[in-house]
Amino acid sequence: MGKLRLGMVGGGQGAFIGNVHRIAARMDDQWDLVAGAFSSDPARSAASAADLGIAPDRAYPDFATMARIEAGRGDGIDAVAVVTPNHLHAEPAVVFLNAGINVICDKPLAATLADAERIEKVASTSKARFFLTHNYTGYPLVRQARELIKKGELGAIRLIQVEYLQDWLTVAVSSKQADWRTNPEATGGAGCIADIGTHAYNLACYISDMLPTEISADLGCFVEGRRVDDNAIVNLRYGNGARGMLWTSQVAPGNENGLRIRVYGDRAGLEWAQENPNVMHVSPFGAPRYTLTRGGVGNGNAGMRNLRVPAGHPEGYLEAFATIYSEAARSIRTDRGELSDPEAHAPTVSDGLNGVRFVGAAIESSANNSAWIHVRP
Amino acid sequence: MGKLRLGMVGGGQGAFIGNVHRIAARMDDQWDLVAGAFSSDPARSAASAADLGIAPDRAYPDFATMARIEAGRGDGIDAVAVVTPNHLHAEPAVVFLNAGINVICDKPLAATLADAERIEKVASTSKARFFLTHNYTGYPLVRQARELIKKGELGAIRLIQVEYLQDWLTVAVSSKQADWRTNPEATGGAGCIADIGTHAYNLACYISDMLPTEISADLGCFVEGRRVDDNAIVNLRYGNGARGMLWTSQVAPGNENGLRIRVYGDRAGLEWAQENPNVMHVSPFGAPRYTLTRGGVGNGNAGMRNLRVPAGHPEGYLEAFATIYSEAARSIRTDRGELSDPEAHAPTVSDGLNGVRFVGAAIESSANNSAWIHVRP
Amino acid sequence: MGKLRLGMVGGGQGAFIGNVHRIAARMDDQWDLVAGAFSSDPARSAASAADLGIAPDRAYPDFATMARIEAGRGDGIDAVAVVTPNHLHAEPAVVFLNAGINVICDKPLAATLADAERIEKVASTSKARFFLTHNYTGYPLVRQARELIKKGELGAIRLIQVEYLQDWLTVAVSSKQADWRTNPEATGGAGCIADIGTHAYNLACYISDMLPTEISADLGCFVEGRRVDDNAIVNLRYGNGARGMLWTSQVAPGNENGLRIRVYGDRAGLEWAQENPNVMHVSPFGAPRYTLTRGGVGNGNAGMRNLRVPAGHPEGYLEAFATIYSEAARSIRTDRGELSDPEAHAPTVSDGLNGVRFVGAAIESSANNSAWIHVRP
Amino acid sequence: MGKLRLGMVGGGQGAFIGNVHRIAARMDDQWDLVAGAFSSDPARSAASAADLGIAPDRAYPDFATMARIEAGRGDGIDAVAVVTPNHLHAEPAVVFLNAGINVICDKPLAATLADAERIEKVASTSKARFFLTHNYTGYPLVRQARELIKKGELGAIRLIQVEYLQDWLTVAVSSKQADWRTNPEATGGAGCIADIGTHAYNLACYISDMLPTEISADLGCFVEGRRVDDNAIVNLRYGNGARGMLWTSQVAPGNENGLRIRVYGDRAGLEWAQENPNVMHVSPFGAPRYTLTRGGVGNGNAGMRNLRVPAGHPEGYLEAFATIYSEAARSIRTDRGELSDPEAHAPTVSDGLNGVRFVGAAIESSANNSAWIHVRP
Repeated sequence: MGKLRLGMVGGGQGAFIGNVHRIAARMDDQWDLVAGAFSSDPARSAASAADLGIAPDRAYPDFATMARIEAGRGDGIDAVAVVTPNHLHAEPAVVFLNAGINVICDKPLAATLADAERIEKVASTSKARFFLTHNYTGYPLVRQARELIKKGELGAIRLIQVEYLQDWLTVAVSSKQADWRTNPEATGGAGCIADIGTHAYNLACYISDMLPTEISADLGCFVEGRRVDDNAIVNLRYGNGARGMLWTSQVAPGNENGLRIRVYGDRAGLEWAQENPNVMHVSPFGAPRYTLTRGGVGNGNAGMRNLRVPAGHPEGYLEAFATIYSEAARSIRTDRGELSDPEAHAPTVSDGLNGVRFVGAAIESSANNSAWIHVRP
Repeated sequence: MGKLRLGMVGGGQGAFIGNVHRIAARMDDQWDLVAGAFSSDPARSAASAADLGIAPDRAYPDFATMARIEAGRGDGIDAVAVVTPNHLHAEPAVVFLNAGINVICDKPLAATLADAERIEKVASTSKARFFLTHNYTGYPLVRQARELIKKGELGAIRLIQVEYLQDWLTVAVSSKQADWRTNPEATGGAGCIADIGTHAYNLACYISDMLPTEISADLGCFVEGRRVDDNAIVNLRYGNGARGMLWTSQVAPGNENGLRIRVYGDRAGLEWAQENPNVMHVSPFGAPRYTLTRGGVGNGNAGMRNLRVPAGHPEGYLEAFATIYSEAARSIRTDRGELSDPEAHAPTVSDGLNGVRFVGAAIESSANNSAWIHVRP
Repeated sequence: MGKLRLGMVGGGQGAFIGNVHRIAARMDDQWDLVAGAFSSDPARSAASAADLGIAPDRAYPDFATMARIEAGRGDGIDAVAVVTPNHLHAEPAVVFLNAGINVICDKPLAATLADAERIEKVASTSKARFFLTHNYTGYPLVRQARELIKKGELGAIRLIQVEYLQDWLTVAVSSKQADWRTNPEATGGAGCIADIGTHAYNLACYISDMLPTEISADLGCFVEGRRVDDNAIVNLRYGNGARGMLWTSQVAPGNENGLRIRVYGDRAGLEWAQENPNVMHVSPFGAPRYTLTRGGVGNGNAGMRNLRVPAGHPEGYLEAFATIYSEAARSIRTDRGELSDPEAHAPTVSDGLNGVRFVGAAIESSANNSAWIHVRP
Repeated sequence: MGKLRLGMVGGGQGAFIGNVHRIAARMDDQWDLVAGAFSSDPARSAASAADLGIAPDRAYPDFATMARIEAGRGDGIDAVAVVTPNHLHAEPAVVFLNAGINVICDKPLAATLADAERIEKVASTSKARFFLTHNYTGYPLVRQARELIKKGELGAIRLIQVEYLQDWLTVAVSSKQADWRTNPEATGGAGCIADIGTHAYNLACYISDMLPTEISADLGCFVEGRRVDDNAIVNLRYGNGARGMLWTSQVAPGNENGLRIRVYGDRAGLEWAQENPNVMHVSPFGAPRYTLTRGGVGNGNAGMRNLRVPAGHPEGYLEAFATIYSEAARSIRTDRGELSDPEAHAPTVSDGLNGVRFVGAAIESSANNSAWIHVRP
């Protein structure tokens, strides 16, 4: 079928997540990076484009020009990856959606609820697709967990505990990554809760297919002089009576990227941890705990559909990220009738909006001494 | 020096924890069980005494008689173990303390705050000692964890997460153990939060040597018809700004006796789990994680003082419980001048009172939609 | 039924394993230590007896006197624990067996094949029982493993890998324990292969219920000046075509007491490790791996018959050792008609003889450049 | 600098390892696949080329034509990946080396010693490079292990235990993968020992930088009708007195891709397992065990030079494989003076020759009842 053509906004020299997106897009040979506005600085954008082997006429000085010209080309891009800092997602997202070009946007969706709602409004009426790279949903065992719950193997869900712990901000640090992530102007005021807490929240929502109705939060900042939260404790209540706990921290020594989830229903429990993502433990009540491995025996369709190598050959973060790109590609091709894959899916704008609402509610609750705050949807 | 003489109240035929206390008392050859009022039913008490090889004249029909007679014997008991259900701790505790006999009492201290305060008042003025069997503090690595924190190796403590998860009450069950533990008359109204939540709370307090100033709780009951909580989520705030999370559940499938704790300071973090108690992970910020093993290299005095077999030979629950008895024996012998062991210690009445206050505050908070409640002292 | 009366030979002041035997005998309240010849030095024996609360008339100057007098007492000992160094097992064992007194002997059975065969000959015609404390067979999950294999859940056994690694002899050390264990006069010439290799061998034999027909060994000594092996690599062939590997070392840094076993059949595999003995992994071919826990769901009779506390409350080395004593007690009581427990068993003299033959064959093979040597029986 | 141009021999439709090579080559954007002879069937080769987007004029009917034409093009390939079955490596390898084109060859080097020596002879005199994809050496922690040993942190190496266990051949199976791997004509007579045993051997050699001087092997086949070994137990002796054990099996239920290594020296030990490759345990004698994580604190240059994402973001099998391609690229560019990276390296023809000699010696030893066989060099 040929590859899909990808453009990129942001991700120029020195960026971290842009390169991750590019590796992910390359992994499964579904995408070709052909265009970009890699920096708000046109010279830097051009230099980055040259590094990346982009043809000079598709190295754009700004994203608006890019959207306009690409939309008009016969061989224009099929999608654009938006990998700018959070507060700069909305503008390009809206412009490309309006140009009818599919968007693959880094998380969180936006730095403010206003921006998030603006994107959502445009996305909901656009014929183009909007994907959000909550990449942890790309792990095969995460998808398998969701399937187990959908099939009722855990029974009625009662308890969800999710945590995302890091330690790199245990002390005051200054670096390109640290600086913007702890700058309230760039993040919309949130720190840890938005940067990684939204991943944890999304993971819990995705696996359980449940959204809380109200939350109570206690956000804190342990490092002197820091202007955003570096730790957040959030409790969640669900409409069916279930309870949730979400803990996210960037000041927990010994935790590199400790995203973990446990879900307990009245028939079984499950546990999964991102740092060793190729195993998942399932505990039926009244029977021994068993272990599912990525691609191993006992997986259903959801766990088996995004594999590159056999069980026992560990896949990791980049493969999970690549799955988001590949599932997006299959969704787009399904839209076009090039193939039929109704199971294809990746996080969407509504997941992103839920995340931004979660951050807002957490901040509001914390400012009100952990009062319970209703969470839309 | 000869063994100390032990009496027992409760723990007759069919009881569970009574036998655990007896094994623990036997383990290190410091105690001889010589007397008992093993049941409120005199015939049953006598039968139990016969099973246990107690001389007939020291098999008492009731604990008050036992206290009176033993206090008057030249070879009277050195201590009594109180292993009755929670709401029946206060009476015998007070009677034996008043008789000048040391008490070793099962946890939680009492079913009501009034009872707890009564015991505390008597204990605080008695010349006899009062020990509470928060047995998990008997694990060598728990003691080592406390020492690490005391020495400042974790720096200023910022975060404590402790959990105690079981699954045996996932569905409605009826058994001797289940029935009284879910009977609010016997427990004082609390379920899981008192039965095992107090262990988790005590562990966090013991290791960190910190008491929270206020807590917020959400207690729940997931099994229809159950009259006490079977799940509790509690957040804790400490005077120094630290935050804590305590989660306890008896409806989490796959968890047999999942007591685990993590503590993070500004210099290091540590993790320990009761189900594999012979290892502890310590993560200094900026250096690789290392593993301490029970009795292995790298332990200090606190970790090395209650060992029976070399590192690599796992010790477990019963050994930790036995350590409470042996430390109590050393405390008593130190009091008497038979030896000098100023490091000897075991949980006391004030730990028990803290636990009962914690339960009360948790219930109050939960009844008030998780409002923050101040915790004495 | 009252307790059984136990005597002890060896285990005086300063000994290690004697105290382990005493704790094990005490644990389940089946035995009372009432007599002993604790040292070949009568004064030291008497002092040890006093420490242990033995009545002076049953503190014997030597084991022969002890056997004669105890055999004649109406309240004489029901069994004697022989806990002397390996080369001093045979004399007391034979004397007590000949006196009609049951023997519980530490492992390995003897330092020489001649001694081992002498014990076996006497034991096989004595009305008294002979038990050998291969204590690792006392772990509930080890017994469960044996049952799984007996029931055919692993299918035909093809592969056994067992290892027992320690590190305490990585460098030259001198201590009471190290000195006799590395003294060829006291050990019969063997080092690591006898001291801990026999445990590994016994474990493999016990779980699989299979004895190899021939073995090939490469024994080595890595520490200069040491006079016995400190590492041994042994391959095993079984009559049914199965293959085994046994590795034992005392110079493997990071291994405290690393006894581990894996068994693979044509239907499933299993893995168990002594340092975390409360879990065992079972992998049916074509189905997910599952985990059995000590006392947890999924265990059969063999796994459930020696439990003191519920699943999730870890039992360890001392409890496994105690199980040997309790099973011995039940065997003796079954012999006497006091109870009927046909499942009761503990390692016997033939297990000990197999172990000594294994050591001999390993030494012979190693001296012949790892030639395959037939192992009786 | 632009990408290097890659050709491929083998790896057409239905192949497994060809696609792994392509993903690995793509990962770091160093290689562009531009030519290929993907099958010995020209029509199939052409169809595969079309699938892969290869220009028609560079989709060759056979590898000889490909070598001749590509060598003559100004924009000819910089290297060729040879991903044919083992017995078909030698012909293309020699042809491309003779054409002056770098070769990246799948392992094992060849099915026969004659073929292996032929390749080695040509490679040793060619100006082109020859790389062998022993991909497990691409894991950062494997490289870190090698560096630790080189720096002497383990002291003098005494013991190496390496194993590679799988279970997919536990029963008789027929599939494209199973059929050629168990066909002695395609493999040169070896089964498991060549297919995965060579990986284990290479890993031990790579990490320790030591080659054994003699080996003793016991190869077996447990599945009726199978014509090659499916289990191999090999002991190794090194010139310095060190001992090694290598176990490889494809009939060990529960093992998906269980490549694990342990190395013990007189100062420390280390352990690493491929299925969770982002952690490595290091145990200095006399100090607590510590854990290195991929990219985490405590790694040296070797462990830090091939990272794509931060510590805690797991990298896996494909990333390790990609590292072989990227290191090969850097070696080639260093040769050309495009950059200077003297640390760049990947397994070479001599590693491959060692592997084939190892297989031959193992077969010879096994045929001679496990006699010790000298291993060149």
